[in-house]
Amino acid sequence: MKVGVVQQTCWEDKQKSLAESERLINELAEQGVELILLQELHATQYFCQTEDLQYFDLAEPLQGPTTQKLSELAKKHQCVIVGSIFEKRMAGVFHNTAVVLEKDGSLAGCYRKMHIPDDPGFYEKFYFTPGDAQRTDLKNQNAFQPIKTSVGNLGVLVCWDQWYPEAARLMALAGADILLYPTAIGWDQDDTIDEQQRQLNAWTTIQKSHAVANHLPVLVANRIGHENDPSGQTKGSLFWGNSFICGPQGEILANANDKECVALVAEIEYQRTEYLRQIWPFLRDRRIDAYSPIVNRVNLRNNNEE
Amino acid sequence: MKVGVVQQTCWEDKQKSLAESERLINELAEQGVELILLQELHATQYFCQTEDLQYFDLAEPLQGPTTQKLSELAKKHQCVIVGSIFEKRMAGVFHNTAVVLEKDGSLAGCYRKMHIPDDPGFYEKFYFTPGDAQRTDLKNQNAFQPIKTSVGNLGVLVCWDQWYPEAARLMALAGADILLYPTAIGWDQDDTIDEQQRQLNAWTTIQKSHAVANHLPVLVANRIGHENDPSGQTKGSLFWGNSFICGPQGEILANANDKECVALVAEIEYQRTEYLRQIWPFLRDRRIDAYSPIVNRVNLRNNNEE
Repeated sequence: MKVGVVQQTCWEDKQKSLAESERLINELAEQGVELILLQELHATQYFCQTEDLQYFDLAEPLQGPTTQKLSELAKKHQCVIVGSIFEKRMAGVFHNTAVVLEKDGSLAGCYRKMHIPDDPGFYEKFYFTPGDAQRTDLKNQNAFQPIKTSVGNLGVLVCWDQWYPEAARLMALAGADILLYPTAIGWDQDDTIDEQQRQLNAWTTIQKSHAVANHLPVLVANRIGHENDPSGQTKGSLFWGNSFICGPQGEILANANDKECVALVAEIEYQRTEYLRQIWPFLRDRRIDAYSPIVNRVNLRNNNEE
Repeated sequence: MKVGVVQQTCWEDKQKSLAESERLINELAEQGVELILLQELHATQYFCQTEDLQYFDLAEPLQGPTTQKLSELAKKHQCVIVGSIFEKRMAGVFHNTAVVLEKDGSLAGCYRKMHIPDDPGFYEKFYFTPGDAQRTDLKNQNAFQPIKTSVGNLGVLVCWDQWYPEAARLMALAGADILLYPTAIGWDQDDTIDEQQRQLNAWTTIQKSHAVANHLPVLVANRIGHENDPSGQTKGSLFWGNSFICGPQGEILANANDKECVALVAEIEYQRTEYLRQIWPFLRDRRIDAYSPIVNRVNLRNNNEE
């Protein structure tokens, strides 16, 4: 199966950003791609550089205009599209949500970002309510549930989720055939080149490791290029691109590097997962009898106990 | 702090193997190394290539001759040594055990391998009882508990454990300052060069990822070189070496590649962990309210439910 990733420039103007997405989706569809991943919040610039009430106006309902546009494209090209929206669920409850559109244009499902970052330039806790642990909209199923589609069970996670092996593992245990990460990560321009390189490598490593630990292919679509800080207080953000597709041993199949606009394509085989889980049967040997403290915040032992 | 890793040839003869360990430990100590990691089952060849009762005779009590030898070296050089023994705990209960020797030669603690592999050429389930989930010998503490030493809390894990992000995470949550993996992994010589490279990269990636996810330095000591199959049924095992030391962003500080005998040294700083956990605060945002299904074997939903 051919899969594709879009790495693109985004503008404040949603129409302009979505037109660029459409151009690259068309390009992928012409190559016979059946599953396409777009980057995090691809319809706009990354407004979380600052905390400003006006940006709540960018939010849309789950099946709002951006989802509608992606739905049309999915139907037109008969491919599954994974997009990312700023979702208004109700007044005061906004999410960073991935939407999955089926080949017939229907909404196959959505995933609401569970781990919400907050650090200078990435003020997401101001805008986004974390996803529910139990999906109240879906018979209380666990949040880390793959979305069933005609091209497999999609383990869709979003950006900061990428740093949590727990999230990838739960998707795998729930039957994911593939992991997908729409993301928006960049450098602090005051960091040294060495530090910037370490951060980029760490980011690539952790996502490849989810492939390795679970024997699943991984798609990553990251934002690219410089965006001004709307508050004017900083130099803005420099998103590092480097979107990639890797196979179930973490082997890189395609990498967008720092190209401004690119439609990345690779061929993946789900059968490979089956084979790898036989030769290196990690899931057979999990020590589930010893993992329960993983649901604690910390497990430091009280000094008095020793 | 200077840390060191020994990558060495091993012989059937324990004295000969330990003499080589001693030579390389001396070399590390001369360079001022305070913490030294040896590879898995370094006192002998890797006998798990075949299932043969005679190899149970290689096992020793926890404080047997191999531990005793390491104790002398630790005391002589005033450094902490992490070794690996085939432990006989009682008749019929054998473990693959890492031992930690303090600077004064005392046994700081041990860790009994929790995840036991079993695949052609690596018949470990025949020899090793998995470590207890709750350490009955240590006030029922969880198995994934770092060992307190004068050079920090050592998160010691063994080989196959390396594929499990759960193990590394639990060590981190319990206060580990560093992760250490004595291992013995190699190639199937019938695999293509491409497949061999993917496997080596996957192995490096997953261990680097534990550094990244937990912001901890990682030491890996792997077996090197060809060892015959005692049963004569296969071509034997080709262990791939490539022991390494990486920093808390997964950045490689030293790599032994395929050198037959090498004393690897690098400088690490625990303070770096503190800083990294502030700039990228993964542990702050863990969704412990949603992780509980991770203690299940699988989480596939019953088809009838949907």
